[in-house]
Amino acid sequence: MSPAFLEHIRVVLVRPLHPGNVGAAARAMKNMGLRDLVIVAPRSLDLDAAAIMAVHARDVLERHRRCDTLADAIGDCGLVVAASGRAADEHAECASPRELAPAMLSAASCNEVALVFGPEDHGLSKDEIMRCQRVLTIPATDAYPSLNLAQAVLICGYELHLAADADAARGRKPRTLAPAALGEQMFAALERALRAIGFVHRDNGVHMMRAFRRLFGRAALDEYETRIVLGLARQIEWAADQGTRETLTSRADTGS
Amino acid sequence: MSPAFLEHIRVVLVRPLHPGNVGAAARAMKNMGLRDLVIVAPRSLDLDAAAIMAVHARDVLERHRRCDTLADAIGDCGLVVAASGRAADEHAECASPRELAPAMLSAASCNEVALVFGPEDHGLSKDEIMRCQRVLTIPATDAYPSLNLAQAVLICGYELHLAADADAARGRKPRTLAPAALGEQMFAALERALRAIGFVHRDNGVHMMRAFRRLFGRAALDEYETRIVLGLARQIEWAADQGTRETLTSRADTGS
Repeated sequence: MSPAFLEHIRVVLVRPLHPGNVGAAARAMKNMGLRDLVIVAPRSLDLDAAAIMAVHARDVLERHRRCDTLADAIGDCGLVVAASGRAADEHAECASPRELAPAMLSAASCNEVALVFGPEDHGLSKDEIMRCQRVLTIPATDAYPSLNLAQAVLICGYELHLAADADAARGRKPRTLAPAALGEQMFAALERALRAIGFVHRDNGVHMMRAFRRLFGRAALDEYETRIVLGLARQIEWAADQGTRETLTSRADTGS
Repeated sequence: MSPAFLEHIRVVLVRPLHPGNVGAAARAMKNMGLRDLVIVAPRSLDLDAAAIMAVHARDVLERHRRCDTLADAIGDCGLVVAASGRAADEHAECASPRELAPAMLSAASCNEVALVFGPEDHGLSKDEIMRCQRVLTIPATDAYPSLNLAQAVLICGYELHLAADADAARGRKPRTLAPAALGEQMFAALERALRAIGFVHRDNGVHMMRAFRRLFGRAALDEYETRIVLGLARQIEWAADQGTRETLTSRADTGS
């Protein structure tokens, strides 16, 4: 596995608060061979202050792109991984950077891959985590599990760097994964379909959709599979709609 | 290997320049379960500035000890490891943090162990490195191999933490997967449902079900998830059946 694949792994910082952390994250990225920095809706971004902490990684900082929303930042990515400390309690399938690095490198051989970090104070929101296929939690002590933003970027980069060097992902056939935006279309259609047949309703909606996101996230769907599920969802909705329409028609016809 | 041994691994910062780095190093230590901080001859040490970066690791910072010389800081230690980026060229036996962590923990079970970091600008001197039994170099890119001081402390702490608590590295709740027989029930129900709504038909049946088997196989469903998909399949079939029945009823009622 060539370290060149690291160039297809994007670091996405969502609403970072402190420019110093952005600069230190850029340095950590360059230390570990990552180059693609995307910043989503920074509350302030003093590039001069960031550059002080970036030291010899100003090039990474200067090449950064900005997006208004997380969806824009990850829409073209085949694999999207959320870094979250909180997820440990809420997300049964959170994995460590060491566990996820080989899968991320393998995906990066023929997809864009995003690694998403939340703001320093509260991390990613539940909704933002839901948009990611996998959740990564950095092992730390229970006494103080919350790492500085740039430190979290470093640990992830370090594991990716080691995995890239170690040929860790070799022997796996690269799969082109569905872009995240198509995945969101699929989930939206699926939810509509499951509501149409009463499988998802007010009481279990969030819970049920989370179960599907977890399951499909783990499966890492390619575009063909995503389109199958999308087509299936539309067919379910159509079938349910036919049923309703027939029922209405039948009622109208019989005057009931 | 008990994480308690981590308490016998001391972080020694030799002549650190920036209090912010000392604070960030204290935070990284606490994140990873290290508690013993020794500072050798700091050129200046503004503890308030350090505390800002330490955040919730002020206790580690406040308990730090100061020594005038490296010899004083490490005199009682059974194993002394120098962290050095430069050592790669000069020291034949430099090893990575991952390679050294088990030996350090093993030593810490009945000795004090020191992990020594040099100043931000020039690192440890040759003489200082010579005083250490082992030399550790953090893997990084050739393009920019020099890590920030606190980042270097973090990587070493991280490897020690993982080595000390191999269970923490798994970070995954063991998952009991669904028995194969239940999986087969699920696939049979799914196929019936997809036929009922016309999504699977004579021409694409084998192909389509193979795609679903591949996808769900990769996801490695647990029993709960299998029952969700099974329930969904039954609901789709029921909804389709309602539609058909209503259509028939409607036709009968209207005499069509």
